[in-house]
This record gives sequence, C-alpha cells and structure tokens, in this order.
Amino acid sequence: MRQAVTTLTVPTRGAGLVEVTAQIRRWVAEQGMETGLLTVLCRHTSASLTIQENADPDVQADLLRFFRRLVAEDPSLYAHTTEGPDDMPAHIRSALTGVSLSIPVMAGEPALGTWQGVYLFEHRARPHRREIALHLIGE
Amino acid sequence: MRQAVTTLTVPTRGAGLVEVTAQIRRWVAEQGMETGLLTVLCRHTSASLTIQENADPDVQADLLRFFRRLVAEDPSLYAHTTEGPDDMPAHIRSALTGVSLSIPVMAGEPALGTWQGVYLFEHRARPHRREIALHLIGE
Amino acid sequence: MRQAVTTLTVPTRGAGLVEVTAQIRRWVAEQGMETGLLTVLCRHTSASLTIQENADPDVQADLLRFFRRLVAEDPSLYAHTTEGPDDMPAHIRSALTGVSLSIPVMAGEPALGTWQGVYLFEHRARPHRREIALHLIGE
Repeated sequence: MRQAVTTLTVPTRGAGLVEVTAQIRRWVAEQGMETGLLTVLCRHTSASLTIQENADPDVQADLLRFFRRLVAEDPSLYAHTTEGPDDMPAHIRSALTGVSLSIPVMAGEPALGTWQGVYLFEHRARPHRREIALHLIGE
Repeated sequence: MRQAVTTLTVPTRGAGLVEVTAQIRRWVAEQGMETGLLTVLCRHTSASLTIQENADPDVQADLLRFFRRLVAEDPSLYAHTTEGPDDMPAHIRSALTGVSLSIPVMAGEPALGTWQGVYLFEHRARPHRREIALHLIGE
Repeated sequence: MRQAVTTLTVPTRGAGLVEVTAQIRRWVAEQGMETGLLTVLCRHTSASLTIQENADPDVQADLLRFFRRLVAEDPSLYAHTTEGPDDMPAHIRSALTGVSLSIPVMAGEPALGTWQGVYLFEHRARPHRREIALHLIGE
C-alpha cells in the first residue's frame, strides 16, 4: 500500500465553476495505482468543490444563478461585511456545497460516472488563485 | 492493510429516498475487516447520497418536500431544460446534498450513529437504476 | 501503513457552531504520522460538520441565521413533528451541510487552509452531547 499527495493551484475568473477533472485524472494516472481512494480538499472558505454534469455548460450557469438567488448578496442580512458584500454569501455557498470529496479509484482511474466532472466552485466576485490538496492511497 | 471495491445497483421509484444501509453493512461485514474506512460514491449527477434518520419514514417525505420547495421545477428559471423540467432541479439538489460519503469502520462495522441510515436520494421524477461505488480500506 | 480511530464527545449549547479543530489537530499529532488521510464523521442526524472561517465569530452567527431563514421552524411545513418544532429543520440542515469530512494529512498535520476551522454544527435548540468518530490512515 502506498500514498501520494500533491497540491494543485486553480486560477478562477470570479464566481463560477472551473472544471479540474482532467488535471486530477492525469495526476492519479501518474501514480500508477490500480485500486485506491482519492481525496480532494479545497483549502478555502469562500470556494468549494462539487461533482456536476460535464456535458452542457448551461448546467454550470444555472447552478451559479441558483446559488445567487438562494444566498443573497445583501449586506443588511449579515454581520460579517468587512470583507465585501460577496464574502459572507461565499462562506454560506461553500458550507452548502462542501470542500471535500472522496472518490474510489477502480481499474486505475477515478470511478466517476460518465457525466460526472469535478469542479472548483468559486464564490467570490473577483478572480482568485485557489489551492486544492489531493491525497491518494492504494496499490 | 487490504482494500476491497464493489458497485451496487440501486433501483429507484422516482423522486425520494431509498435506504441502502443494510446492503452496505452486509458488504462491509463480508470483507472481514476490524478497522477501516468506507467510502460511498453515487455515480450520477441527478441523484445523491445523504445520511438521515432511519426511524420515522415521515422524515424522508419531509426532506423530499423541502427540496421540492427549495429548488423549484420551473423551466423559466433555468437555461438547461432540454432533458425535462426535473433535470436541472435534480442537478442542484445533488449539489446541495453531495455524492460522496466517508464512514470509519470500527469494531468490524460502519461507525454510524444509532439513528443514522445511508440513503440514495433520487431527484428525477421517473424511476432509474443508480450505481453506487463502494471502497473499503483497512485490516 | 497504520490506522488509528477514536471518538470525541462534543458538548453543545444549543443551535450554533462549536469549533473542534484544536482537539482534532492534537489527536492527529499524537498519532505521529507524516502523511495520511483523516476522516471525521458526526454520528447524529440533527447536527453536522462544516469547515468554515475561523477568524471572525460573526461568520458563525451569520451561518446560523442563514440556516434559520432557509429552513423554517414552522410545524405546518412538516409531517415529522413529534420530537419538537426544531427536529425536522435540524434533519434538513444536517442534510444540507453533511456529516462526513475527509482531510489529507501532509507534513504531519491536517492540510487545512489558513482560515479553515472544523466545526460541529448543532441544529437542535437545546444543548446536546455529540459524538464524532475520527479515523486516520497513513504512515
């Protein structure tokens, strides 16, 4: 049994989803494990991770719009406003979608479904550089 | 240290929760590990996984109703409508509840609380056959 | 490769977030592993786990208020009401935030970001004693 770890940097262009499936698949393939467990952690509190449909880009736009409606950027609703009107909503959207994912590795690759992609979900209005930590254990 | 993997197929009857705790417990027991880590992944983007109360079936009906109210099946809200009015809401409900679970195994079984059951949450209106991938590592 | 498991008891003071980062870090440090995977499971269906900002306590108060607005404690909305008006909302809030977390361990400690803390999120109105199960695998 072996382990491997790395950290990926993901540049974002403001609020929206950035697909990271290809980078993750490539790194897993490089480790040469047949069976294992892949863990992905977003090391931020105003961005998160989600597994979503990778076919129609409209899905990503609809997700972004839904979370904008659900978690209003209205400073009158929040006490934590010093980092900007988009910061507390970003924390809430991150709590709703989560920052860690666990994905079995089978037959040498992440056992994602056909239509599943892994996305970093940027919740802040401005571009950021986000770090995701990857851990793989297996053989 | 050993690993085991399998895939379970879960038939659903349209939107609602399907308990899979017994199947998961049985498979874990068959692997004969005293201590370990169990990972469960739902390989779809319009169904998800949740750990919920396993005592009163009203809890499941209330959960379903809550997510119906929260994520309206109103095509005017979404750009992604070609797969039916229930498809984009299903993706959003899946993002809100998540598709992966990590459960420590202690004393030979998943360390769930007394009232915790593992459920596949079907978000589409029609019945589907859903696949969940299981990974176990331990000894 | 080794494993370690333990259970922590977390007393709560009614609805709100209780930080458990220090206890988790201490236990991980005691296991003396350089690289590994930490899993945290909340063994309840009316409390959950979230990774959130650990700097400004207003963030925690805002999170609590958001979930109170989003999931109303209005018995007319739910069938499951026998355990009190705060019970079904607690189950829903738990489903929205999740009960398991996976955190890579790098350089001997959980690879959390600078501003990330691990919180038990109590969703019931009254104080409870909550159990969280910890699993660590690595070397």
